[in-house]
Amino acid sequence: MDATLTDGVVRAGSDARERFYDARGYGRPVGGDLALAPVEAAHLLYRGDLDSVDGMGFRAFLASAAVPETAVLVYKDLRDRGFYLSPARERWVADRDTTGPVDFVVYPRGKGPWDDDVAYRVAVVGEREPVSAADLGEVVVAVVDEESEITYLETDRPTVSGSSGVALPDGVAGDLLADRVFCWGPPASLYERGFYGQRLDEQGGDVLQLSLVEAAYLARRGALAVEGGPGAVVERGREVEGDRFDRRLRAYTALRGRGVVPKTGFKFGADFRTYAGVESVADLGHSEWLVRVLAAGHAFAPRDLALDVRLAHGVRKEMVFALVEGADDADEDQHGGADGDRTGDTDGGVEWLSVGRLTP
Amino acid sequence: MDATLTDGVVRAGSDARERFYDARGYGRPVGGDLALAPVEAAHLLYRGDLDSVDGMGFRAFLASAAVPETAVLVYKDLRDRGFYLSPARERWVADRDTTGPVDFVVYPRGKGPWDDDVAYRVAVVGEREPVSAADLGEVVVAVVDEESEITYLETDRPTVSGSSGVALPDGVAGDLLADRVFCWGPPASLYERGFYGQRLDEQGGDVLQLSLVEAAYLARRGALAVEGGPGAVVERGREVEGDRFDRRLRAYTALRGRGVVPKTGFKFGADFRTYAGVESVADLGHSEWLVRVLAAGHAFAPRDLALDVRLAHGVRKEMVFALVEGADDADEDQHGGADGDRTGDTDGGVEWLSVGRLTP
Repeated sequence: MDATLTDGVVRAGSDARERFYDARGYGRPVGGDLALAPVEAAHLLYRGDLDSVDGMGFRAFLASAAVPETAVLVYKDLRDRGFYLSPARERWVADRDTTGPVDFVVYPRGKGPWDDDVAYRVAVVGEREPVSAADLGEVVVAVVDEESEITYLETDRPTVSGSSGVALPDGVAGDLLADRVFCWGPPASLYERGFYGQRLDEQGGDVLQLSLVEAAYLARRGALAVEGGPGAVVERGREVEGDRFDRRLRAYTALRGRGVVPKTGFKFGADFRTYAGVESVADLGHSEWLVRVLAAGHAFAPRDLALDVRLAHGVRKEMVFALVEGADDADEDQHGGADGDRTGDTDGGVEWLSVGRLTP
Repeated sequence: MDATLTDGVVRAGSDARERFYDARGYGRPVGGDLALAPVEAAHLLYRGDLDSVDGMGFRAFLASAAVPETAVLVYKDLRDRGFYLSPARERWVADRDTTGPVDFVVYPRGKGPWDDDVAYRVAVVGEREPVSAADLGEVVVAVVDEESEITYLETDRPTVSGSSGVALPDGVAGDLLADRVFCWGPPASLYERGFYGQRLDEQGGDVLQLSLVEAAYLARRGALAVEGGPGAVVERGREVEGDRFDRRLRAYTALRGRGVVPKTGFKFGADFRTYAGVESVADLGHSEWLVRVLAAGHAFAPRDLALDVRLAHGVRKEMVFALVEGADDADEDQHGGADGDRTGDTDGGVEWLSVGRLTP
């Protein structure tokens, strides 16, 4: 069976409609004929169901660049997994599915374009194409790596919610060192219930080491007294980390405000690991999230995403990205007066994006 | 007991020499007295063994910036683990240990500065300080993270050696697509024994998908015929990856030349995973290394190192960095005429650096 390609649409006759659309969910009926997207035609050529498009077989059709090979590979993989799917083109699928970065609408197994159900909305990217964080949250990203293996990444917009919290002390003395603060004689609860800092002496002692982000947060709330005030700590943070410090402080503040304890994620190569229900440090569960803090306009290299998601999976945590709007410091004026650290604030310009592996 | 600080050296009397040096390996005897590095004095102040240095107790001494807190934390941690150690200063330790980035010379447990044995040479860095790849290979890097936890990273310069290899075919036809090459009807051994490419159809079929780096390598050796020749493939690689493509091709070539098969490391967020002893793809063992390819002048962010090392550890592989000298393409003229892919070439400007976790 032969078909023709015009303006990005492959046309075949009523016979094709019956064989490919009615029986197996390829294409879109137009009058009595069948319209196929190039990716669908490529798959039919590969299978030998279609003999040619404008005289081209599978090899020539691919070489003609009528369709990117990444789309062909993902389409084939999803078909091989038993799914019917449609290209996310206008009139091919519902209007809601043609906006955003969606390439394919995948139907639940056993369903097809005749039904209303959608299993996945899939965006196809090559491993070298940057992926904008703003585009993620609802789609499944199918990354085709350089050796044509496909990794599916599920994205979501989780909510932050926890039950951790502690009453904060008033103006505990601290010394700002090169890139941390040593805090002298704080109430035991600051560490033991609030999980702020790290003791210098594991057996107890009176020195609590705070990271700059912890110290900035506590100083702003009046819980820590450092020479130069909160501003000196923030200034030091910016010196050693640049803009990243402000973003991290915003994310830290948003998490604490929601009852979630952020601790360093350094050992996992992340900004934070988080605990949603700290009753006491002596009785600490596993941390649930790994958080990487990014500017809201960030574009991911798919390989970096693969690295983070793989690592998080390996340590049984969820990979979450904190996307921080703007460079200005919305939290500047919130210090002082709080009884505890759970302010119930809004997230102050921080959005949350989770990314995980998916086997369709 | 009190001491004085002059020109970066803390001086204490003969009493101190007996108590601290003879009994516990602190400092360096000078005449009948004891010279202490500030980090040693800080530790003695912390322990209460020394009352003051120029009137300063532990808190004031730290706040005076006489010694970076990161050094104090690592020194304390190693002492807590039962080691004696010396600062890598001239006249404190052997001359060979005062060159390079070493901060501490750590003696085997039970040994001290009186002995000749060295267990580790340790470089101390804060998590925000870049670490030059060129400095690594012999030292242990002690990274102090923002919450004052310490991660020890062992570095080494491994050699590359494997027994993989296959006779290469002559000019198999390939089509250069957007960012891969489809190869039509190659001999089965190219994939099955050589582990080049990835079959489009897992059941066999005659289409072999090659990555651009595989295709460039094979085209240069005359094994693959693409329109435009090897240059067209390399050019495409540079278009989609920039300089990184040349570096990756150099590393790929060095590995193949040594009998090691590199395959994509995408799922691990790396450039390659490698197999040293491929007999056949049907009977493939686990890959041994994860390889990230970097320019020789690269400086690591310790957090990125922590991420790679943690991931590699989690999947039971060794993390190896290929450090590639220069941007020029030393391999340009090596194509053609080879019977197989094991050329036994030198590594052509590629050096290998492994980094792993260490518990001292």
